[in-house]
Amino acid sequence: PRQLVRFTFYKLDQKWQLLPEDVRAEGKRQLKRIFDEYSERALIRSYSLYGVRSDCDFMLWTATYDIEDLRWLSSQIRRSLMGPYLSEAQAFLAMTKRSVYVGKNARGAHDPRLVISPEDSKYLFVYPFVKTRPWYKLSLEERKRMMNEHIRIGLKYPQIKLNTTYSFGIDDQEFVVAFESDSIPDFLDLVQELRETEASQYTLRDTPMFLCVLESLDEILDAIGA
Amino acid sequence: PRQLVRFTFYKLDQKWQLLPEDVRAEGKRQLKRIFDEYSERALIRSYSLYGVRSDCDFMLWTATYDIEDLRWLSSQIRRSLMGPYLSEAQAFLAMTKRSVYVGKNARGAHDPRLVISPEDSKYLFVYPFVKTRPWYKLSLEERKRMMNEHIRIGLKYPQIKLNTTYSFGIDDQEFVVAFESDSIPDFLDLVQELRETEASQYTLRDTPMFLCVLESLDEILDAIGA
Amino acid sequence: PRQLVRFTFYKLDQKWQLLPEDVRAEGKRQLKRIFDEYSERALIRSYSLYGVRSDCDFMLWTATYDIEDLRWLSSQIRRSLMGPYLSEAQAFLAMTKRSVYVGKNARGAHDPRLVISPEDSKYLFVYPFVKTRPWYKLSLEERKRMMNEHIRIGLKYPQIKLNTTYSFGIDDQEFVVAFESDSIPDFLDLVQELRETEASQYTLRDTPMFLCVLESLDEILDAIGA
Amino acid sequence: PRQLVRFTFYKLDQKWQLLPEDVRAEGKRQLKRIFDEYSERALIRSYSLYGVRSDCDFMLWTATYDIEDLRWLSSQIRRSLMGPYLSEAQAFLAMTKRSVYVGKNARGAHDPRLVISPEDSKYLFVYPFVKTRPWYKLSLEERKRMMNEHIRIGLKYPQIKLNTTYSFGIDDQEFVVAFESDSIPDFLDLVQELRETEASQYTLRDTPMFLCVLESLDEILDAIGA
Amino acid sequence: PRQLVRFTFYKLDQKWQLLPEDVRAEGKRQLKRIFDEYSERALIRSYSLYGVRSDCDFMLWTATYDIEDLRWLSSQIRRSLMGPYLSEAQAFLAMTKRSVYVGKNARGAHDPRLVISPEDSKYLFVYPFVKTRPWYKLSLEERKRMMNEHIRIGLKYPQIKLNTTYSFGIDDQEFVVAFESDSIPDFLDLVQELRETEASQYTLRDTPMFLCVLESLDEILDAIGA
Repeated sequence: PRQLVRFTFYKLDQKWQLLPEDVRAEGKRQLKRIFDEYSERALIRSYSLYGVRSDCDFMLWTATYDIEDLRWLSSQIRRSLMGPYLSEAQAFLAMTKRSVYVGKNARGAHDPRLVISPEDSKYLFVYPFVKTRPWYKLSLEERKRMMNEHIRIGLKYPQIKLNTTYSFGIDDQEFVVAFESDSIPDFLDLVQELRETEASQYTLRDTPMFLCVLESLDEILDAIGA
Repeated sequence: PRQLVRFTFYKLDQKWQLLPEDVRAEGKRQLKRIFDEYSERALIRSYSLYGVRSDCDFMLWTATYDIEDLRWLSSQIRRSLMGPYLSEAQAFLAMTKRSVYVGKNARGAHDPRLVISPEDSKYLFVYPFVKTRPWYKLSLEERKRMMNEHIRIGLKYPQIKLNTTYSFGIDDQEFVVAFESDSIPDFLDLVQELRETEASQYTLRDTPMFLCVLESLDEILDAIGA
Repeated sequence: PRQLVRFTFYKLDQKWQLLPEDVRAEGKRQLKRIFDEYSERALIRSYSLYGVRSDCDFMLWTATYDIEDLRWLSSQIRRSLMGPYLSEAQAFLAMTKRSVYVGKNARGAHDPRLVISPEDSKYLFVYPFVKTRPWYKLSLEERKRMMNEHIRIGLKYPQIKLNTTYSFGIDDQEFVVAFESDSIPDFLDLVQELRETEASQYTLRDTPMFLCVLESLDEILDAIGA
Repeated sequence: PRQLVRFTFYKLDQKWQLLPEDVRAEGKRQLKRIFDEYSERALIRSYSLYGVRSDCDFMLWTATYDIEDLRWLSSQIRRSLMGPYLSEAQAFLAMTKRSVYVGKNARGAHDPRLVISPEDSKYLFVYPFVKTRPWYKLSLEERKRMMNEHIRIGLKYPQIKLNTTYSFGIDDQEFVVAFESDSIPDFLDLVQELRETEASQYTLRDTPMFLCVLESLDEILDAIGA
Repeated sequence: PRQLVRFTFYKLDQKWQLLPEDVRAEGKRQLKRIFDEYSERALIRSYSLYGVRSDCDFMLWTATYDIEDLRWLSSQIRRSLMGPYLSEAQAFLAMTKRSVYVGKNARGAHDPRLVISPEDSKYLFVYPFVKTRPWYKLSLEERKRMMNEHIRIGLKYPQIKLNTTYSFGIDDQEFVVAFESDSIPDFLDLVQELRETEASQYTLRDTPMFLCVLESLDEILDAIGA
């Protein structure tokens, strides 16, 4: 079975800070309780973006076999005390899927591509990805050849782990690409090196790019003045 | 006769939650009464998008022979108690029309293309669609050949039902494409497979893409804290 | 002499509905008085868009020989009671002009192209229009040949009346195209058929497209809860 | 020496109208005092846009040898009573510069290109301008030849005065083009005629286009309900 | 080691001015204290943009070896009194990196490219930069040849100092380019001259462009009515 994956980027209305201390404390408690409850049902991780991007404060990375989990989380958050002040600045929905470029048994019977299992590295780099239509006109062999070059370069950075998920027909991008790494400059160098691959010529869009920092929801909420 | 079809995506102002409980209860009652009244005049279905997209909360799919029905619905909603807090985040207007690519009697005397009749599948996938101008320069024969390839692939997914409606001159897109299915991964696979068709090279725009979940208006309003 | 033409699309702040009944009644009276006064000076028509487009509520179509009329109307509206709640969501400014593609005496001494005279059909279809720069590189003869094909198709729909006005240098589009018709499907079919003309290959932008419904200002204001 | 030129487009928050009469009167007095003070230091003209464009109310055209004047004006306005309600909807910064296409002594020792001196015509037409990169690949001779055609057409409209200023590296456009004229249809005809020049094929962007009407700040403020 | 560099553009909500004088005074004191504290940990400079751009008021240029510094600064500012009124209108994140176009020991053992050290010139010109994908298809030799032409032109303006930083994979642009200069017209002329280089043909995006004026945070806050 394949998983649904959602990267939800939240922005807290700065006016929340003007509310009484006890309302805010209770709002934070509720949000953390929802987070904890979700983590008992399915996968969830929190990442901060304050000090990095100006358009969002934090991100929740969720994965599940049941779309009801995603709907439950959204419903719970918006009905909580903080709900009227917390908006989804952006969200990317995707699914896991076996790659056509990698042999079926490449990594054994249990295909890691179908299950999201974070390494919990310090950083997560996320972006939506759309290829040009001429890419899809190429033969599968040509595309495989180009992807192999792409993969070869990736192998030079073994400490960077790639999660590619698929969004065809369910969101505005074709893929959501998420890389885990403990080093920012390593990832920057990898992406710059990948610009020179042949496959890179077929990129239509790969922005916005989010550098996310693994951090507990507790710490994030304190840092953004919630 | 041909039908007018409208997909209206609503966003509830989160500040609605801060109003007194009895005002909100009466607001919900009014909205449901309007929905029920409309359903006696013409076709209407409600779909939720919370937990899926960040830019809207739910969608109403309406079809009618009379534009007055659409205008009545809009007027009733905005004059209701919830009106000042409920905005149309996006809307796509279209009409049914017989396809030039399908023989007139393809499915018998009653052309299903002219009447919207939902299967009430669990999911509805909706997106506006614009072809490149070079597409319209091709001969009808060439376009038919390409559409046949397109249709052949669709037939591999018989459980997915397609509704194509036309927006030339009446809205910003050329078509609104709506697929009904009970499976998200099946639809994702279909769309990815269609990327490799020749016709796909002539796509100018096919976003935003909305994954809508069939749900009663009652349940939606509860879930989004209305 | 040539006329200035303005299509102004208004959006009423939904919070207007929360004001006391008597303030709103007086606000409506003022707006109607301004409309009536303008109609004594120059041409004005009101069209509704609620239930059709999500980004505006109604449109005022004005034509005049004197820009002061347009400025007077705008000043009067924003200084009225409803002014702080009524915003111009979009506006297109244009002028009448004799076409280079139609013989000078095509329709007799009085060139209908220079004077806006609405048929008061049930629907008005409006969109801004920009041609690609390569269009202007073609010889006038080539462009005339293409426009003739365009006109021939238009003649198949004699019940649809076209008003083309010019915006070079005075607004963001090159033309504003306005069609009057009593039938929505006829217009849709015309626009779809025009996609296959050679001239259509030189279209850079023809959106947003507005389907406007002729309606008295009185009825519009009631319908949108003003 | 070269001048800094700024075209600042203002939008007055419609909620300003809801403030007490005496606060608004004092706000207007302050704004006019600032305008008058600036006019003693450097060049300033006011133009209205209400009734013309929907995204702004008026424009201040300023020119100076000292960037401190522009900063002083902005600081004074935002610190005045009306400041919290008056926003800069858009602004274009540019500098005067001798054209490479016109001989150094074309108009004598005092190069009018380096000093902004308005004719105070009734209308000012302003737009930001960006050329395609292939334009810069052409030899200077080729570009001169094309600009000569451009200039020849301009000479057919001697009553229209052109001010071209340069924004490379200091704002998002490459040029800001400002035409003064007492006739709207003349300018429209000129711009349409220029579309057919060879140079026009190298235009990347020439919008938004602003038709500004010369009017005293006093009259503008009254007209927009300040 | 390489530095993280962030250019953060702030916009102060004009409604801040409506708060009581003592609240505003304390808010300013807090902001300046945060600025001073940061300057003890890492590099920070303040630049004003009022009177120049309409979309932001001032910019903080920060550089550090530790991403925690950037996060600390953002957290401190938004939790301060002014926090709810101060938003990040835009931000660009980048890192220092040795250029592939310049020999390793070009400027001796201590590579100035890896450490941000402002000249504290009067002006800073900043823009995000993205090259077209065909650029990356060129051989390194070809690119070096083109960059040499680019560098040669830069050498004609020795008083202008360039800081190029890299954003691959960590923000939406590929580079952030920052030039320091005491002269606006010199920089304008340089940028215009660079348009004619061969490398310029491979520019996909180099906007928005920010002309920033070095100014103490104290003076900025006073000038914008904080």
